[in-house]
Amino acid sequence: MNKSYDVIIIGGGVNGCSIAYYLAREGKRVLLLEREKLAGKASSAAAGMLGAQVEVTEEGALFTIAKESRAMFPSLQYELKEHSGIDIELVQKGMLKLAMNDEEARHLKSSIAFQQKLGERAEWLAPEQVAEREGQLSDALMGAMDIPMDGHVNPARLTHAFAKSAVNLGAEVKEYVEVYSLIMDGSVVKGVETSNGTFDGEHVVVAAGAWSKRVLEECGMTLPAYPVKGECFSVITDRPLLSSTVFTETCYLVPKSENRLIIGATMISNTFSENVTVGGLFQLMEAAARVLPAVKSATFERSWSGIRPQTGDGLPYLGQHPNYKNLVIATGHYRNGILLSPITGKLVAKMIQGEPVPGYLEDFRLDRVKEHAKG
Amino acid sequence: MNKSYDVIIIGGGVNGCSIAYYLAREGKRVLLLEREKLAGKASSAAAGMLGAQVEVTEEGALFTIAKESRAMFPSLQYELKEHSGIDIELVQKGMLKLAMNDEEARHLKSSIAFQQKLGERAEWLAPEQVAEREGQLSDALMGAMDIPMDGHVNPARLTHAFAKSAVNLGAEVKEYVEVYSLIMDGSVVKGVETSNGTFDGEHVVVAAGAWSKRVLEECGMTLPAYPVKGECFSVITDRPLLSSTVFTETCYLVPKSENRLIIGATMISNTFSENVTVGGLFQLMEAAARVLPAVKSATFERSWSGIRPQTGDGLPYLGQHPNYKNLVIATGHYRNGILLSPITGKLVAKMIQGEPVPGYLEDFRLDRVKEHAKG
Amino acid sequence: MNKSYDVIIIGGGVNGCSIAYYLAREGKRVLLLEREKLAGKASSAAAGMLGAQVEVTEEGALFTIAKESRAMFPSLQYELKEHSGIDIELVQKGMLKLAMNDEEARHLKSSIAFQQKLGERAEWLAPEQVAEREGQLSDALMGAMDIPMDGHVNPARLTHAFAKSAVNLGAEVKEYVEVYSLIMDGSVVKGVETSNGTFDGEHVVVAAGAWSKRVLEECGMTLPAYPVKGECFSVITDRPLLSSTVFTETCYLVPKSENRLIIGATMISNTFSENVTVGGLFQLMEAAARVLPAVKSATFERSWSGIRPQTGDGLPYLGQHPNYKNLVIATGHYRNGILLSPITGKLVAKMIQGEPVPGYLEDFRLDRVKEHAKG
Amino acid sequence: MNKSYDVIIIGGGVNGCSIAYYLAREGKRVLLLEREKLAGKASSAAAGMLGAQVEVTEEGALFTIAKESRAMFPSLQYELKEHSGIDIELVQKGMLKLAMNDEEARHLKSSIAFQQKLGERAEWLAPEQVAEREGQLSDALMGAMDIPMDGHVNPARLTHAFAKSAVNLGAEVKEYVEVYSLIMDGSVVKGVETSNGTFDGEHVVVAAGAWSKRVLEECGMTLPAYPVKGECFSVITDRPLLSSTVFTETCYLVPKSENRLIIGATMISNTFSENVTVGGLFQLMEAAARVLPAVKSATFERSWSGIRPQTGDGLPYLGQHPNYKNLVIATGHYRNGILLSPITGKLVAKMIQGEPVPGYLEDFRLDRVKEHAKG
Repeated sequence: MNKSYDVIIIGGGVNGCSIAYYLAREGKRVLLLEREKLAGKASSAAAGMLGAQVEVTEEGALFTIAKESRAMFPSLQYELKEHSGIDIELVQKGMLKLAMNDEEARHLKSSIAFQQKLGERAEWLAPEQVAEREGQLSDALMGAMDIPMDGHVNPARLTHAFAKSAVNLGAEVKEYVEVYSLIMDGSVVKGVETSNGTFDGEHVVVAAGAWSKRVLEECGMTLPAYPVKGECFSVITDRPLLSSTVFTETCYLVPKSENRLIIGATMISNTFSENVTVGGLFQLMEAAARVLPAVKSATFERSWSGIRPQTGDGLPYLGQHPNYKNLVIATGHYRNGILLSPITGKLVAKMIQGEPVPGYLEDFRLDRVKEHAKG
Repeated sequence: MNKSYDVIIIGGGVNGCSIAYYLAREGKRVLLLEREKLAGKASSAAAGMLGAQVEVTEEGALFTIAKESRAMFPSLQYELKEHSGIDIELVQKGMLKLAMNDEEARHLKSSIAFQQKLGERAEWLAPEQVAEREGQLSDALMGAMDIPMDGHVNPARLTHAFAKSAVNLGAEVKEYVEVYSLIMDGSVVKGVETSNGTFDGEHVVVAAGAWSKRVLEECGMTLPAYPVKGECFSVITDRPLLSSTVFTETCYLVPKSENRLIIGATMISNTFSENVTVGGLFQLMEAAARVLPAVKSATFERSWSGIRPQTGDGLPYLGQHPNYKNLVIATGHYRNGILLSPITGKLVAKMIQGEPVPGYLEDFRLDRVKEHAKG
Repeated sequence: MNKSYDVIIIGGGVNGCSIAYYLAREGKRVLLLEREKLAGKASSAAAGMLGAQVEVTEEGALFTIAKESRAMFPSLQYELKEHSGIDIELVQKGMLKLAMNDEEARHLKSSIAFQQKLGERAEWLAPEQVAEREGQLSDALMGAMDIPMDGHVNPARLTHAFAKSAVNLGAEVKEYVEVYSLIMDGSVVKGVETSNGTFDGEHVVVAAGAWSKRVLEECGMTLPAYPVKGECFSVITDRPLLSSTVFTETCYLVPKSENRLIIGATMISNTFSENVTVGGLFQLMEAAARVLPAVKSATFERSWSGIRPQTGDGLPYLGQHPNYKNLVIATGHYRNGILLSPITGKLVAKMIQGEPVPGYLEDFRLDRVKEHAKG
Repeated sequence: MNKSYDVIIIGGGVNGCSIAYYLAREGKRVLLLEREKLAGKASSAAAGMLGAQVEVTEEGALFTIAKESRAMFPSLQYELKEHSGIDIELVQKGMLKLAMNDEEARHLKSSIAFQQKLGERAEWLAPEQVAEREGQLSDALMGAMDIPMDGHVNPARLTHAFAKSAVNLGAEVKEYVEVYSLIMDGSVVKGVETSNGTFDGEHVVVAAGAWSKRVLEECGMTLPAYPVKGECFSVITDRPLLSSTVFTETCYLVPKSENRLIIGATMISNTFSENVTVGGLFQLMEAAARVLPAVKSATFERSWSGIRPQTGDGLPYLGQHPNYKNLVIATGHYRNGILLSPITGKLVAKMIQGEPVPGYLEDFRLDRVKEHAKG
């Protein structure tokens, strides 16, 4: 007889681990399966920005869920530290979204008005105010949107903290186990066939990021999603160049501990290659030097990339599969995977326990889109 | 319309790349697909031993094919250097298989008799002859079998040399492309469905090492094979400790350039984890120090592991699929993947071109085994 | 004219950086010179144990200063976080010093009595109490000394936190600058000659660890000290194997975040080589597996070594040079460099400012020893 | 009594190791001392270009010695392979020096005329000829100088091959031993004081690259030389982009095996910092993309730097010290360290054996320059 679980989670990235954590807290028997190592793909590659207001600028379900998830971090950091001993390095020193020209300035000002109307904190900084706040930024800026509530975490540590907390609460986590296929019985998923044998589960969650599509396509299900590579690099400086995170149309710069700056990210669609290209680095360096000239004297540390799951309409998939009620999909988080991980874990736990979930989840249903994703 | 090829090869390890090379030489339009990077798994992890006589000690098809493949290396090194510019670092300074006790000595002597009867070079060295040849070996040895024809190559370089030669001869090689499933039409394979779209092929070759099973199981085919992890480590010494490769029942030591020694390998069945365990290293260090005490003063360099494909009866699978005539399987090479790669490439090219192949391939047929592999 | 400083510090390890921090806090113009990178040698190699009671077991100045320094950490962590943003990862979950046989048990019990007499917390745990506290330890133990106040930090982070705090308080830190010689004028040090030119200083501090001897010998001063290499390795486990730090006569095991264990350290005298030997690793693995059998299943992560400065009598050198009053020496901390760094920084700052210092510093005078250090 | 040697060599870079080799061949008792690891600094950082005609473009001693040294490589590769088993990966597929504008074209044409007059092979390629030879180069080029005899080696392997050959011929090589000072007796050097004790030598050779100055200044000798950092990076491509080495005023591109290209190098004076700056990488990427646009799609592999010894007049120092007849200096090779290593070893061996040396060595005397080096 096969070993049996309440929930089998496919994918050991930040969302899979968050789901494992929120389910383990409820006493569920959880098995998490990861093909390689935990946090081995996009979850480690991310800069860890919690850019609820900077990344998402239209009213709607994504904005709502992003703010809700961001609000979970301050208490989550203590919770995870308690369960796992791991500090997720939450920093909430605010974010500046820079206007490099008049058009961007106009756009930011209208975004501020929109955010304020929704009750969010956001305000306009004139060039001299930006200069006072961040003395190393280029003096060619036209101003900035100041978002005091956005911040960042250490994404690999967050993922490990979720996983270790889940394990300490009784979950099983298996690395280097590949799921070959879902085991179906009519419209019910019974378990998974893996490189390590067969496991039975009452529920199965697919949270495999850009690789979720493969798992589903094997079972004849389509998932209108595609991978988008993001290339990044980090630098070390003698003195801190920035205190806030800085965001522009062409790059972002996230100040981390020990005078490290993470600079990202390109967007290259439809590739699973993790290669970092010379052209990608060149473009990021140029963009970063335009806003922060002193970055040219910084010490280059390393470069890397992550493969993020994007969907046709830019919204994640978060909910039960329309045809298989005990199959839950949680993917398509694109650039917001770290930010959205707490709420993703919490909501999936609710779905699986049959508890009521917010109405905005309608927008993240898998069958909302009829046509295929474009690249 | 999908892009169409004569042959699509799944797997960018040493055997997939060798097959690509031998087919590209014949003018075939070849596409090789690799899920991660070329030579990223067992083909880089190997020590590169060409142990035709030391690894294979029973008469039969495996012994025949091993010797045939070993004989290809001397000319292959020039061929690949010519096509790719890469030196595969072939060394044929012989191998010593050590007897640590009387029983092993008896066993080796009978193995020598057997090999000589088959016309192979192999002879017994008494302890003092071993000491004269390799002054650093333990003086507790009971003698050794001397195999002058066995040697070693650089396995990652061999893989890249095959791949680059194939590319220079017109093949296409795509890294970071995952094959989701084979496209079947009755008993004919029409192509592959991948993370990069669909490709049509007149023939498909599965040469994905320990991962071959997954590719086939998705199509409902079983492959009685299982993964066996081998852990290794390397050391650097001030002066060379060995000139021959040394082989015992519990470890091997392969002298490489720049005073590097590679020491391997454990055998841990039924795991895809590439983790190197403390226990594995400890066991190898103990075994190595028993035959070569000076290794304790050597500088530890690094450790790694490879996941090798083993079969139920220890013989590789090499031939057309019994039910799908245009599908070729080449896997299950276990510890002999590097050694067997030239002959594997050459024979698969012959099969696909419809040329006659040796009768011994009967022993490597996929349907020779009725029961499942054990672990 | 050369640039001039109140204090020039030679050495960018944990003690040089601590000294820079405590002087910068007092408003001194500080220049710290490091030949390579900050925290590049023993300060990064350390496991970061704060073993005041476990490492030092005789009454005397070293025990006094060790306890005094340990007591500084709880507030220091906040101070450094405030100034630098860096979390030094202080953990004070106690330490167990294990008795592997009756003799060790007797020895530990008398050590406990001695510590309690001095008012320190330490108590004996019988084997079953040890097992209750740390379920994974070998059941062949004879008991343990429980030291609730000892703990550990992240030593590289501590060093960077001192350096970055010093910089934020106005100090200058130059990496990749080598001091060629001290500039003397009779019995007064006037500055330093470096690969980056000449710098004038009213005081010079030599805190260059095992490399301090070179700096002084160039000026004709002898320093009875010698290097001792310590080799270490780290492992990762699925679940935490230990919660306390564990210490035996032959190894220590320090549990770090993310299920990492650091295991150290060998003691190899009179070498500056940072090579890790197979023999050293083997010995540590054997010792670790004897007390914690489950470590054999742990994943080996990496190995490294540090070169620690030891003195003839095992006590550090901490004080003004007997012949050059404005030259301060702070080295010879051996295995206690991390533990002693706060008090070292604080006391050197006092000396340089002419403030009164504790009488126990007499024991750390440079001219206490007449003969040369043995190896 | 101290151990005594015929020759003590300070510096384990390519020139120190070459000197050790040529002396060991003559039966001298040689001790080579290296502060860190062999080939740890500029000798590993180099791209290994043998640019006798491309780097040196004025008649004179440097041109003569460069051509003489280049001519030694073809036989040296076999010699070193024989002694050490190491292949130095000599490639002599020629070099192209590109003209990016009319002025550079005129300059190159006159350089060709000058080289041909001296009997060297060099010829002008019109833009279409360049395009035919190297199809990936920018079509905005104005032509190129074709130098068929220049090529490249693997510089780390060359250094190790020299060292291992020397050891196999009886030399002693000690890593991690730092020379504190030379031991002088009037105008005679008697040996060296090191971190590993005192060694007596009849001759001492300083071949410590950019660190030579320190060794000499400690003994009150000045050396008009300064360090120049060179930053580089490497890329990997799917197919080879170049077959010849390509050289411009702002960068060079050296094709290595396995589709690797090395791109270098910046020139940053008066620093020993090995940090690679964002600005340096950006400048190299821009320069490389201007001549080879396809490099933008290449995969970035890694970046590094080397600290090269430059002199006031750009010529190396190669000869006996004017005041200490048994002290030989061999440094200041700047960008030609790899190229000049064979002749450097050979000539130093001659000097030490009292054999006649070429007259051009007058130009490399240490006392040729009266003023100090500029930076």
